[in-house]
Amino acid sequence: MASYAAVDGLGVAGALAEIAAVRERLGGESSGWRIREVGDGNLNLVFIVEGKHEGVVVKQALPYVRLVGESWPLPLERSWFEYSALTEQARHAPGLTPEVFHFDRAQAMIVMEYLRPHVIMRKGLIGGIRYPRFAGDIAEFLAATLFNTSALAGTAATHKARVELFAPNTALCKITEDLVFTDPYREAPLNRWTRPWLDAEKQAFERDSALKVAAQALKLKFMTSAEALIHGDLHTGSIMVTGEDTRVIDPEFAFIGPMGFDVGAVIGNLLLAYFAQGGHEAAPGARDAYRQWILGEAEKVWSEFHDRFLALWRAAPSGDAYPASLFASDDDRAAMEKERGRFLRALFEDTIGFAGAKMIRRILGLAHVEDLEAIADPERRARCEAKALRLARELVVGARGFSGLADVSGAARAVRAAGP
Amino acid sequence: MASYAAVDGLGVAGALAEIAAVRERLGGESSGWRIREVGDGNLNLVFIVEGKHEGVVVKQALPYVRLVGESWPLPLERSWFEYSALTEQARHAPGLTPEVFHFDRAQAMIVMEYLRPHVIMRKGLIGGIRYPRFAGDIAEFLAATLFNTSALAGTAATHKARVELFAPNTALCKITEDLVFTDPYREAPLNRWTRPWLDAEKQAFERDSALKVAAQALKLKFMTSAEALIHGDLHTGSIMVTGEDTRVIDPEFAFIGPMGFDVGAVIGNLLLAYFAQGGHEAAPGARDAYRQWILGEAEKVWSEFHDRFLALWRAAPSGDAYPASLFASDDDRAAMEKERGRFLRALFEDTIGFAGAKMIRRILGLAHVEDLEAIADPERRARCEAKALRLARELVVGARGFSGLADVSGAARAVRAAGP
Repeated sequence: MASYAAVDGLGVAGALAEIAAVRERLGGESSGWRIREVGDGNLNLVFIVEGKHEGVVVKQALPYVRLVGESWPLPLERSWFEYSALTEQARHAPGLTPEVFHFDRAQAMIVMEYLRPHVIMRKGLIGGIRYPRFAGDIAEFLAATLFNTSALAGTAATHKARVELFAPNTALCKITEDLVFTDPYREAPLNRWTRPWLDAEKQAFERDSALKVAAQALKLKFMTSAEALIHGDLHTGSIMVTGEDTRVIDPEFAFIGPMGFDVGAVIGNLLLAYFAQGGHEAAPGARDAYRQWILGEAEKVWSEFHDRFLALWRAAPSGDAYPASLFASDDDRAAMEKERGRFLRALFEDTIGFAGAKMIRRILGLAHVEDLEAIADPERRARCEAKALRLARELVVGARGFSGLADVSGAARAVRAAGP
Repeated sequence: MASYAAVDGLGVAGALAEIAAVRERLGGESSGWRIREVGDGNLNLVFIVEGKHEGVVVKQALPYVRLVGESWPLPLERSWFEYSALTEQARHAPGLTPEVFHFDRAQAMIVMEYLRPHVIMRKGLIGGIRYPRFAGDIAEFLAATLFNTSALAGTAATHKARVELFAPNTALCKITEDLVFTDPYREAPLNRWTRPWLDAEKQAFERDSALKVAAQALKLKFMTSAEALIHGDLHTGSIMVTGEDTRVIDPEFAFIGPMGFDVGAVIGNLLLAYFAQGGHEAAPGARDAYRQWILGEAEKVWSEFHDRFLALWRAAPSGDAYPASLFASDDDRAAMEKERGRFLRALFEDTIGFAGAKMIRRILGLAHVEDLEAIADPERRARCEAKALRLARELVVGARGFSGLADVSGAARAVRAAGP
């Protein structure tokens, strides 16, 4: 087994030519394969390789954070966690992840399906495009992966084995702990924001005791709540879509954590897209209908996730938690329905809080989102961002006060309507 | 390395004679060592070995549940988890665990300090003996081990390493999941109760939807809440005392779980002892003062634990959760004090709920406690047990309604005063 070496295009072709299944899938001579590096994420090398017949994607981890450079080392083993998560997610949500053709742990390299004509959902949101399958598919992905990797669905032994498998994914979790939950609330050298327009907001957040406490309560939950295998980075840049198909990619941050972190990531990024529309519309109001579509999608993601999760739970015969054998009478079943409602309400509050935290880090922390970065005029961008921050703070501090996602949509509209 | 074999007295002597430090500690010729098997627990062999100078205790895991027999296999590796927990606990709560002289993973054997003239706390409670150090020492053990093995005290990486280390202790956790949280609420072949006097109570619990749901919510928390390294079986049979010294033994059920499970185990077993006094007093009322002492100890365990935990948290400079660097202003510090109060209130509710669940399993499940079993007259025993069950149900279902431990004491007194 060769020791790890970051590959270039030639190296990729050589590696793929040695994997029979991939070689055949690509077709033709390896010298004729078209190879381009397309990684626009923060961490890895990503190649698209197209052969005579088909294409594949090759994703190789780099031993450092690509966004920052070699000064920030990062374990190659994240590739193993990504592969393990892809495998487990595909079992529960078939057709909603890219197919994996080959995994090389030593090279930290995954060879997988080349998705086309899919685009990154975030780019679609910037472009004002509607994806009719998006909300339903993501709701299904969330419900199927989160429920089925929880102790509600399986045995305690299976759950603990998953906890053990993903526990060493420490370095990637630490990125989240630092960049999502901590740095945006203090002076940290890697923080970025739209200066000077958001200087006041940044300083106010650093002094906002209630906000910091609420963010830290979420951080503790992120660190200690071993509910289910979560994707860990489920923003709209980790979702690829067409009008007919939806796929969730890049689960290298996966570990056994709180379910609300994944659901909140989707909701929070939709809300960022909502506030970013003001920077993309040709004339004021031109994107109003699209704004409503975005909020409607956020509501659908939650409501369809909620209903699907509930249906899976009602039908689950073999979870070690709340074993079906204990609840056989009509009274029992009524009590369990009430308990499921209580569980999902707590999950809703987690979701809302995590959504807010994810929004804040994208505006005041290191890693931003294209929805906002693509707004060239900084003053215009800052106006969008300031409103997003205002809602996000409400979500983090006041999650318990929201009755449902429609209530969140209402708050988003109110924040947008108020102020400059 | 010899493969595992359960030892007898001769085997113990042979094994100890080969460990220089232990041989010297015992002193004299191994042929002169006095050896007796004293295991009265449910799972293991325990030998006391006394030499010319000193004694040691040898604890060896058996590959099955001693209480049930070879039909219920149990991994020897629990000895490794016990050793790992003893080592970690000793670091945080020095002097409150037995000193470990030797560990042999292949033989699943721990050689440790022979505690004398210590008695098992439970036997002291049956005998009506007061231990002035008990509450303070146990409060210190709980606060020091639970706080210092949590993400409030250390880094996320350290916490995750602990999670990974103890995650494979699946079989022991499953005993708790089944015997504490599930079997007492259904018909299960291993259940025992004082028949026929408690038949009605047993059947009522099996039909009690609200109680079953609440017990399952606690079970889910036990399975998914990775707060701290917990002892996992901290009843009064796992505590050895004299008037001057307190030690916590037998942490083979240790894993990263909810803090309230340990605190609740202590409180719940004190409450069992409270209700058992009616079976031990020479004449009605003869143990009234001792009853008050027990309730006072329960209150002291909680209040001293609470204060000590709070003090450790206030002084903690390096926990990854709620990092001190984020909370520097007066407003910040006030907000953090409020947050600590919120955290400890949630921990109190967990504690009360787990206490109730632990009481119920000792009366309706497989493993009972000597406090009650030692009451020879079954009708008299059943009267004590029925009252304990009544309070326990209130604790499990209504944990949120109790304002503090004094409120729990009051409820215990009220339950005892009412009815036959």
